[in-house]
Amino acid sequence: MPSEAGGGDRGACVSSLEPLARVSDLSERELIGRIHRRLPASPDWVVVGIGDDAAVVETERNRLEVLSVDAIVEGVHFDRAFTPPSAIGHRALAVNLSDLAAMGAAPRLALLSLALPATLLLAELDDMIVGLAAVAARFRLAIVGGNLTRIDGPLVVDVTVIGTVKRRQSLTRAGARPGDDLYISGSIGAAAAGLQMLRAGAEAKEDVSDPCIQRYLYPEPRLRLGALLGRNRAATACMDVSDGLADAVHQLADANEIGATIEGSALPIEEGARRWFELRGQDAVNASLIGGDDYELLIAVRPRLRGRLEAARRHGDVPLTRIGSCTAGRSVVVRQDGVSRIMPPGYSHFR
Amino acid sequence: MPSEAGGGDRGACVSSLEPLARVSDLSERELIGRIHRRLPASPDWVVVGIGDDAAVVETERNRLEVLSVDAIVEGVHFDRAFTPPSAIGHRALAVNLSDLAAMGAAPRLALLSLALPATLLLAELDDMIVGLAAVAARFRLAIVGGNLTRIDGPLVVDVTVIGTVKRRQSLTRAGARPGDDLYISGSIGAAAAGLQMLRAGAEAKEDVSDPCIQRYLYPEPRLRLGALLGRNRAATACMDVSDGLADAVHQLADANEIGATIEGSALPIEEGARRWFELRGQDAVNASLIGGDDYELLIAVRPRLRGRLEAARRHGDVPLTRIGSCTAGRSVVVRQDGVSRIMPPGYSHFR
Repeated sequence: MPSEAGGGDRGACVSSLEPLARVSDLSERELIGRIHRRLPASPDWVVVGIGDDAAVVETERNRLEVLSVDAIVEGVHFDRAFTPPSAIGHRALAVNLSDLAAMGAAPRLALLSLALPATLLLAELDDMIVGLAAVAARFRLAIVGGNLTRIDGPLVVDVTVIGTVKRRQSLTRAGARPGDDLYISGSIGAAAAGLQMLRAGAEAKEDVSDPCIQRYLYPEPRLRLGALLGRNRAATACMDVSDGLADAVHQLADANEIGATIEGSALPIEEGARRWFELRGQDAVNASLIGGDDYELLIAVRPRLRGRLEAARRHGDVPLTRIGSCTAGRSVVVRQDGVSRIMPPGYSHFR
Repeated sequence: MPSEAGGGDRGACVSSLEPLARVSDLSERELIGRIHRRLPASPDWVVVGIGDDAAVVETERNRLEVLSVDAIVEGVHFDRAFTPPSAIGHRALAVNLSDLAAMGAAPRLALLSLALPATLLLAELDDMIVGLAAVAARFRLAIVGGNLTRIDGPLVVDVTVIGTVKRRQSLTRAGARPGDDLYISGSIGAAAAGLQMLRAGAEAKEDVSDPCIQRYLYPEPRLRLGALLGRNRAATACMDVSDGLADAVHQLADANEIGATIEGSALPIEEGARRWFELRGQDAVNASLIGGDDYELLIAVRPRLRGRLEAARRHGDVPLTRIGSCTAGRSVVVRQDGVSRIMPPGYSHFR
């Protein structure tokens, strides 16, 4: 619209003059300009970028494409009361990249679809984009396009990511069989403890520099590990742990029509998380199994291929821990102090 | 989860036994199975489809990729009071395909991200997917993956589409210059009139078979026309008309730093829409200019290339009407009955 020519600059002025300016103070075009300026510059292979009806890109030769979409919704995946906008932006992209990691793919580009409540502050939008842009820059990911809409409801950040992988190097959930060992990357429980700390902090002012809180707010996609596992064919199956390890083990078992036994004592529970759970009378094993937001990789490995896993471990940037094995039955159990019990179900957004 | 093995079938049972069953009666996995069964089968080039962490696909050789994302939000883009679920599904995909049409691209695949209120009926979800699947099947589009989440708020349907186009055959908004003629495909005003009819019908029970209502509920992406225009290089610029012709002309002019003059008397206003507007004392030209949801293509054509446009017209499936031309100034005007006035702004979701 003619009154909005150069509106991007006007948008910047609104913010500097009016710290409480809202997204509803700008037009869609001004908002797009504002977001665009905070994103990393596009690489050469982006032929048409943000601002047209669609983006146009060159593809990579001799690679398969790996595509994932994930939405995070205020009130379901994050609480704006204690999640800073930069962490919302970080999470929206990181959880998608975690899916690419689980497939052994290298990220390439993303599309960003935002549904913004009219009351969202421009400063919050800015910080959210800065958080997302930092993840994009770190993993050399181009944001090639997106969509903006108003919503009379919660903030929704929907991200589509596309990566690439060489044929025969992609990892999937299928391929595990009885006798395979199960490994988890990094540690579990920290994000769940961090979320509890933040919720408690609504009254008690928790220290937000606590590693568990940082782990919850800024999940780290295991892209390097996933790429290594895909390249050396160490894993028979792989998936990311987004809704808790218990849920992931159930899903991996279901996908392969097998069972699994997890050793409670072997779980790499983050020390700060264990302390937090135990001080509050919670079973640390159980809390770490059902707690979500770990974004680690769950990996099935044929015992005779353990050497390959060791190679991935040496070249990787994150520990790998054997936590159990795949079994022939269909039951998924956790063994603790000599007692086996059915693995609890994971978190479900619906039922 | 073990209790949900084969849950997809159980989902089907819930629906047939309980016509008022809600999405919250099923697990995420059951819902995914339910959606998956209603989608067209995947073509060979889909290496990993729905159900893993991400989809894996082969790319097309010697083509550029064209990517677009669009979300439709209940209360902003549709009103569930008078929009049948099948029309919501149709719209979610069709508005994205309209963006591909505007780039001259052929659709290839889509990802579907749904944020579902817990109270949504399973029967409504089913119908929505059937409406979307019908568009996908008609345009030979594979739905390769997606995401499901709960939302404590309005229904959000976010679709990412990817198409392909040969290098040098993609259309963009940039490229129009003063002296170019402006054309519009099909007709305008019908969708805006149809929306008014539906809104009025909340009291008066409008006939939903009215062509204007059908036009509003089931927009038709101009994919064939876009592909023809890209192939024969008839258009110097092209974009789709989603938020009204007035908005599109402003955007095309801004993108090229030019102006435009539109002839009010030349506009191909749908007859039923003109009658509806005039009976209600509305200026049909104005109502058709600012009314959204037409999803036609606005095309700039260099006069000496008019022959190419005629070829596209002959081989196309939709009329093309010259509605004005691009001008050297920056003003965008509409001329009617010998009087020129500034083109009204289009619909804005934000300010």
